[in-house]
Amino acid sequence: MMSDKATSQTSANAPIRVAINGYGNLGRGVELAAQKTPDIEVVTVFTRRDPASLTTLGAPVHHVDNLHCFEGKLDVVINCGGSATDLIDQTPQTTTMFNTVDTFDTHARIPEHFARVDAQARAHDRLTLISTGWDPGLFSLMRCYFGSVLPDGDTYTFWGRGVSQGHGDALRRVPGVANAVQYTVPVEENRQRILGGEHIELTTRAGHRRVCYIVPEDGADLARIQEEIVTMPMYFDQYDTEVNFITAEELARDHSGMPHGGSVIRLGNTSRDTKDVMSFNLDLGSNPEFTGSVALASARAVARLYAAGQRGAITVLDVPPSSFSPKTPADLRATLL
Amino acid sequence: MMSDKATSQTSANAPIRVAINGYGNLGRGVELAAQKTPDIEVVTVFTRRDPASLTTLGAPVHHVDNLHCFEGKLDVVINCGGSATDLIDQTPQTTTMFNTVDTFDTHARIPEHFARVDAQARAHDRLTLISTGWDPGLFSLMRCYFGSVLPDGDTYTFWGRGVSQGHGDALRRVPGVANAVQYTVPVEENRQRILGGEHIELTTRAGHRRVCYIVPEDGADLARIQEEIVTMPMYFDQYDTEVNFITAEELARDHSGMPHGGSVIRLGNTSRDTKDVMSFNLDLGSNPEFTGSVALASARAVARLYAAGQRGAITVLDVPPSSFSPKTPADLRATLL
Repeated sequence: MMSDKATSQTSANAPIRVAINGYGNLGRGVELAAQKTPDIEVVTVFTRRDPASLTTLGAPVHHVDNLHCFEGKLDVVINCGGSATDLIDQTPQTTTMFNTVDTFDTHARIPEHFARVDAQARAHDRLTLISTGWDPGLFSLMRCYFGSVLPDGDTYTFWGRGVSQGHGDALRRVPGVANAVQYTVPVEENRQRILGGEHIELTTRAGHRRVCYIVPEDGADLARIQEEIVTMPMYFDQYDTEVNFITAEELARDHSGMPHGGSVIRLGNTSRDTKDVMSFNLDLGSNPEFTGSVALASARAVARLYAAGQRGAITVLDVPPSSFSPKTPADLRATLL
Repeated sequence: MMSDKATSQTSANAPIRVAINGYGNLGRGVELAAQKTPDIEVVTVFTRRDPASLTTLGAPVHHVDNLHCFEGKLDVVINCGGSATDLIDQTPQTTTMFNTVDTFDTHARIPEHFARVDAQARAHDRLTLISTGWDPGLFSLMRCYFGSVLPDGDTYTFWGRGVSQGHGDALRRVPGVANAVQYTVPVEENRQRILGGEHIELTTRAGHRRVCYIVPEDGADLARIQEEIVTMPMYFDQYDTEVNFITAEELARDHSGMPHGGSVIRLGNTSRDTKDVMSFNLDLGSNPEFTGSVALASARAVARLYAAGQRGAITVLDVPPSSFSPKTPADLRATLL
């Protein structure tokens, strides 16, 4: 167990040394976040690309093939690859040499990923925290607290308003579409009904709608594009989908950000006639910057818990909240309780 | 550190045995909450009153003088006395014999209370979790997560709409007032401005207003009562205060509930032009029932962490979220992440 003493020793030491493995939007978000955390130093960025081709915010860049040269020089490696193809191998591999953090978010495969990474971490005396971020991550934390406090109730999750990369990709595969952005948008009326205390059956259509901004190719048949989109199985056919045609200039000007967010709501009863509503809401200017901030706080927790003797794989559900904070437990008690 | 094994052993064992020490609104809230948690059994209620005078929801009642007779028969004692006079002594005393939980909420005295209880717990090989509930408690958790993830930002807290017992007491001391209820109400316009991304200076008056329902004595001078209330130092003079005169029947009919709630909001920046808003909101039908539910989940965590070897005083900030849940870590990972 982590004592006050162990924590303050960690804080009193040199900064926590982290590496960012992969420098896409998320990797850059982690580096940005580190500019606001004096207790954490980004020692290096690892990349599969030519290191000379990367422009970071200041962190040195090394090729990922040289990762092993940093053994013993890093407290935590934050794996910033994609879930689909990168992290499933990257995290078990890097965990043979380093404590690690990842944002693996393929919900259905988390138990399998956890088991693989846990085995590697235990075999190599490391600590790894997987699947951090906001969903999975902060939203998972809330679902855990909410269900523990109000066992008699329902949990609802809404995502957005935010850009869904997967749906944007699907739109761009439609013939005649030059470029596209798709926003996932909660059905606000139903969200408000739940917040107001009404248990409702949240079908796919009742929960979210989809708003598309399409730049058509010259001379494309707009009616046909619209029809192909709204009837596209799985992606759009089960939703109310709005299709807007705009110019490339409008897309660049109005839709190049990566906002996202969402809510977790618990509607429960503490006694027969007594309802209680707990809710958590995120309204994020930048999805990758915020996810990077959560990953960086998670790296702090890993460094702390590793110093206190913890090994194997963990998730945010296993981390004492105080471990995410740069402040000492005594300071937190005096200021936050 | 708590392993999956330790947890599932706890879950596989007989129910967690708790006692409720003090049977006011909060004690009754804990007993109600236990009706929804099959893994927890309320073994007994302790009272300073004549045990025969208490009507519980089913739990046996014993006089608090016989508390020592239950040594070895309880996993956790939940102290449900008031902060002002009871808990400051009750928790250190009961912690000499039992693992304990309390809802001590005199914010300024928490470090002192923590130190006293921690010393007793360590001397007697016990674990105690103090100052749980929703503020301090869940709100403290949120402040910790929010500040850790978005270090560059401001945290705002709003309380209400809810009944403030202390302000009601102050109203009842005004000559000519037969009975009274006071609601603390957030200034919704300013709350929405912050949720919308605007950093504002939240003065006392800008944060909350006070709404009073007064039953005057026959023939009382209503104008004088109103003037005494709105100018009352500390309690009302720094707020916009609304005074409503009603009948005893209206008070009983419309204002006998104990609703409460509030919000914690973090408004931060992940980069210069990128704002992120995190918020947590509670809308509680019954303050004591909800606080009782949080206390009961905290008792589960204490039983778990004690079984895993933890000793001394802790707060919710030190507890891995999974410890509050009746589910196993593997189940939580599969269903909540």
